[in-house]
Amino acid sequence: MLRSAQRLADIAPFHVVELLTRARQLESEGRDIIHMEVGEPDFATPAPIVNAAVDALNRGKTLYTQALGLPELRQAISDFYRQRYGVAVPAARIAVTNGASGALNLAFACLADPGNEWLLADPGYPCNRHILRTYEGRPVAIPVGAQSNFQPTPAQVASAWNENTAGLLVASPANPTGTLLTLPEITALADVCRARAGHFLVDEIYHGLTYETDAPTACAAGDDIWVINSFSKYFQMTGWRLGWMVIPEAFVRDVEKLAQNLVLCPSTPAQYAALAAFQPETIAILEERRAEFRRRRDFLAPALEGIGLAVVARPEGAFYLYCDCSAVAADSFALARELLEEAGVAATPGLDFGTNAPEKYIRFAYTTGVDRLAEAVERLRRHFGR
Amino acid sequence: MLRSAQRLADIAPFHVVELLTRARQLESEGRDIIHMEVGEPDFATPAPIVNAAVDALNRGKTLYTQALGLPELRQAISDFYRQRYGVAVPAARIAVTNGASGALNLAFACLADPGNEWLLADPGYPCNRHILRTYEGRPVAIPVGAQSNFQPTPAQVASAWNENTAGLLVASPANPTGTLLTLPEITALADVCRARAGHFLVDEIYHGLTYETDAPTACAAGDDIWVINSFSKYFQMTGWRLGWMVIPEAFVRDVEKLAQNLVLCPSTPAQYAALAAFQPETIAILEERRAEFRRRRDFLAPALEGIGLAVVARPEGAFYLYCDCSAVAADSFALARELLEEAGVAATPGLDFGTNAPEKYIRFAYTTGVDRLAEAVERLRRHFGR
Ligand SMILES: Cc1ncc(COP(=O)(O)O)c(C=O)c1O
Ligand SMILES: Cc1ncc(COP(=O)(O)O)c(C=O)c1O
Repeated sequence: MLRSAQRLADIAPFHVVELLTRARQLESEGRDIIHMEVGEPDFATPAPIVNAAVDALNRGKTLYTQALGLPELRQAISDFYRQRYGVAVPAARIAVTNGASGALNLAFACLADPGNEWLLADPGYPCNRHILRTYEGRPVAIPVGAQSNFQPTPAQVASAWNENTAGLLVASPANPTGTLLTLPEITALADVCRARAGHFLVDEIYHGLTYETDAPTACAAGDDIWVINSFSKYFQMTGWRLGWMVIPEAFVRDVEKLAQNLVLCPSTPAQYAALAAFQPETIAILEERRAEFRRRRDFLAPALEGIGLAVVARPEGAFYLYCDCSAVAADSFALARELLEEAGVAATPGLDFGTNAPEKYIRFAYTTGVDRLAEAVERLRRHFGR
Repeated sequence: MLRSAQRLADIAPFHVVELLTRARQLESEGRDIIHMEVGEPDFATPAPIVNAAVDALNRGKTLYTQALGLPELRQAISDFYRQRYGVAVPAARIAVTNGASGALNLAFACLADPGNEWLLADPGYPCNRHILRTYEGRPVAIPVGAQSNFQPTPAQVASAWNENTAGLLVASPANPTGTLLTLPEITALADVCRARAGHFLVDEIYHGLTYETDAPTACAAGDDIWVINSFSKYFQMTGWRLGWMVIPEAFVRDVEKLAQNLVLCPSTPAQYAALAAFQPETIAILEERRAEFRRRRDFLAPALEGIGLAVVARPEGAFYLYCDCSAVAADSFALARELLEEAGVAATPGLDFGTNAPEKYIRFAYTTGVDRLAEAVERLRRHFGR
């Protein structure tokens, strides 16, 4: 009799969780599983960040902060934009949030009118369309593939736009593919949105985790762009739930009203911890770990290619390889189960990233050491008989 | 040209923040302000909880957890219901959330269909109607007053119900009044909702902070009731952003899907910290602090009465006194400004709690020591010339 809101019919769980549950069961039976489905760094948070938290806790820093975050953290993030990117982003435009997740929620709560359409890349980060749907916006998928390096093109955006379209969200580096947008590409996408009086949001959560060039920030392409980021990935603070958002000035007050009412404030211990995130000794640790991710990628990409798993997207960032598995399997979801059961390797099927030929793709995360990656490749080689 | 979603027109900021900004300015000019507007305990988080967090951080517990929280924390909360209330609440029905705020967001994201109406007490916690509005539900105020101890009655709920009504949310102890619902009262309200196939949500965030009797939990009135709670107030973990929700079984899966997509997981360090919240040594500290809140209330309530600020609601819990100030001022908002500027006392005007004669009421929080409360009373006495 009692039922959930209609939106729940459109909100999918993560399919990989089902695989994970099975993986845990196999592990409890003594099987060794190599986890390549995990979307977070395998490193614990760097010591200077942890120490800053402990220090703050010992000083009793456990009360609510202002809704948009500690002024000194907003300033530290502003300084980071100046130092790392050479871009001026005033602290007043920065909101500290419950991870990039919290930023995406606030952005869509602020911008999504019921029934309005938003353009999202498919494959893409699956939560986007569900967050948007929760605020009664309508996600519209732009299918992206190898020909555009798995990023939407200005032409695609222009042709998908109609009078109900409210905006566009992209990610660079992207999940699940790790591909980047250049600054001219970001600018071109921004121009398409501007010409249509649409909003443009760029998710930069994997910034810092790039292995060819540094990713340009969309903040350099205009102060009308919403830029989402997080302490989760490069700063390795996933479980702390801390991120931020750069907001076009005209919307800061509305986001603040929403934050006051929906979240009260981001985690206080996490905010004090994050004050240490930009210090040179922390950055030194993070850059070492970045080099380690790079080594893993450089090992894994050719190894997977060698056994018939084509790395179709240029994996310039994040810690994922998105592979076309159609040469070795008809359906990536069945393949993911099979690899788990028979080879003891967990990976994420395309199904979790959208509806654009998901059966052809499978995502491998290099969030485990090279020795384990080598073991995984060996198991896959045996499995496919190559 | 670019604008926010329409809902933003209905989302109010906290009026008290304006006063707070002015208070900070006065303080920076050297003025002494007594803060009685603050909705959080003035105690730092108890040491055993902090120590548990530090210990977990040192063990590298900084990764994502499952979306509904650590299984051992969900179990600890379940055990707490058995021990403290003698009620069986299976861990599987418990979601750990980003504070009660996160719980309210997930509940309304799960239940609120666009245009459906929800009944809320006025005066009440202001965020409720804004959270609801964000998910496109329509808040409908039930005016409550001294005759029903500032809680909605079954008769009011029945008469406010129409074919668009989806449910009812109450709080016990309530904010801003501190009044309680008895178990028969909760049951009677639940029955009204049941008879109309409506949802019933009870916010129990101020449980533990009661000074006459312990508050009964709505979990004892049926497993079809949504019960919201938090580590913020009794456990004094406001800034950690951790709470929980007891969910009717049929909705657990939908809340889990939402949590996976909207928040990923609650704060990991906070969850490990909270594992220590139910330990006897922590409870001993909390009960001492509860006694301190009681002493403050017992001092402040008669003192305010003595200077013409009638405590109209029976303040059985929380840490607020909701006073009728119509004997001393025509408009509580003007009064709040005046008290700040002229007496150096900050309090929260009724305006922040709804539209039910807000100009008549002002809320004083006893979240500061008795010596400061006495000084505040002295200042008010002088101000009113009593
Ligand atoms: C592209 C992308 N955006 C946002 C998020 C959310 O991360 P968090 O909320 O931990 O910052 C993720 C997490 O995997 C992601 O991959
Ligand atoms: C009645 C009530 N519910 C919910 C909340 C939210 O608190 P939190 O998110 O810190 O648990 C508050 C905070 O003041 C409150 O007064």
